[in-house]
Amino acid sequence: MDKIETYHFAVEPFHVDFTGHLFLGVLGNHLLNAAGRHSHNRGWGIDQLNENHYTWVLSRLSIELTEMPAQYEHVEVETWVESVMKLFTERNFLIRNADDGRIYGYARSIWAMIDVETRHPADLIALHDGDILRYVLTAEEKPCPIAKFGRIKPLLGGDTVVVATHYSDVDINGHINSIKYIEHILDLFPREQHEQHRIRRFDIAYKTESYLGDDLAFFCEETAGEHHIEIRKHVGSSEKPAGEVVVQAKLVWE
Amino acid sequence: MDKIETYHFAVEPFHVDFTGHLFLGVLGNHLLNAAGRHSHNRGWGIDQLNENHYTWVLSRLSIELTEMPAQYEHVEVETWVESVMKLFTERNFLIRNADDGRIYGYARSIWAMIDVETRHPADLIALHDGDILRYVLTAEEKPCPIAKFGRIKPLLGGDTVVVATHYSDVDINGHINSIKYIEHILDLFPREQHEQHRIRRFDIAYKTESYLGDDLAFFCEETAGEHHIEIRKHVGSSEKPAGEVVVQAKLVWE
Repeated sequence: MDKIETYHFAVEPFHVDFTGHLFLGVLGNHLLNAAGRHSHNRGWGIDQLNENHYTWVLSRLSIELTEMPAQYEHVEVETWVESVMKLFTERNFLIRNADDGRIYGYARSIWAMIDVETRHPADLIALHDGDILRYVLTAEEKPCPIAKFGRIKPLLGGDTVVVATHYSDVDINGHINSIKYIEHILDLFPREQHEQHRIRRFDIAYKTESYLGDDLAFFCEETAGEHHIEIRKHVGSSEKPAGEVVVQAKLVWE
Repeated sequence: MDKIETYHFAVEPFHVDFTGHLFLGVLGNHLLNAAGRHSHNRGWGIDQLNENHYTWVLSRLSIELTEMPAQYEHVEVETWVESVMKLFTERNFLIRNADDGRIYGYARSIWAMIDVETRHPADLIALHDGDILRYVLTAEEKPCPIAKFGRIKPLLGGDTVVVATHYSDVDINGHINSIKYIEHILDLFPREQHEQHRIRRFDIAYKTESYLGDDLAFFCEETAGEHHIEIRKHVGSSEKPAGEVVVQAKLVWE
């Protein structure tokens, strides 16, 4: 089995924003599908793991693009595993135009495997006698020329928007789905921001699960052309809720 | 060219709700893609029409299902044109499991073609010397055994929820996209409603466009186990805004 999985998609009319470019959330969804396909085809898919009471959990996702695919373009995603540690694995992505081969950009992600009942992390190397190590492609073998996920500082101030969560936000596990957080983050910005700037780099860290009906407080702070975002559970009626951090994110605009 | 277009999709993990079944909005998106594929392959696609300054506008959509596709299932959509009148065309859909052939349900839709500049409707029969008539499959030739779109009464009372629209709601034309209205409508209902009831039939009529930044007032009234919904532009600060009707919809639960 090849170490690289190639996944194709076309940019559909309802998946582009008002500039005619793919929504970042939809791109994220395609990356996660590609990841799912890669692990499924190698015996490590969620459907296979569930039988063993384990599941993959996305911990970090970083996407860096020189160009966002436009409506009707055909896109090819390559995905592979760069490293496996005891509790985490790094999975990378290359995103290119399937017709002319030009590269839109790259993505990096970090995943843990947890026991679905105890929610405790599993030892990736011990599982299946280290079978997963057979699929590793090191940075020398297959480079991913974007920076790794950097630390995002906790926010203290900034504007706050409270967002209620609904039926459409939730996945099969009853958790707010990873992609919906991306949509809600992009919805914080007015038309002009999206009109005049393109997202060059997007980093997101998933810290805690939130659930259908949770109110989420979005803190947003701008520093040097970057936006730092922190999503916390909105507890009580205070304007600056002290609830758990659910998501941290950083946007770099061009 | 065959009069029926067949379109395939798989039910992806992030496209299912907490019961493990496809989101109705995602199904709607697939139906619209199938429609786009059908008309494109026959020379009537939006991309081709745009050169002639015309575009398709969805006016009505009715979906009736005995079962909603579940996660990882493979779905096959057939679509065809049942009739063409001067200003409207009726397009139907059959939705079935691609592996065992069982039928999930059917859908009906009504489309107009408008001039993108004047927004006036075009005469479908006069265009291209009536070429579109070559693709008609009458109700006798290809039955669609669900009722046509019925009249939805205007609402006078009911609960009101005001929803602000954001970047993610808007399509390439700057309009709130047809699918997002469906999502927002389903988000009106609490977890219990979705847990205990399945949507058997969903009717939606698109009356007027709304735009990024519009506040939309959702009126919802229950009569005899059905929900009638009216979305109006929320103008002024009144609780019962008198703005234009954007969408009317009806949900029948099982």
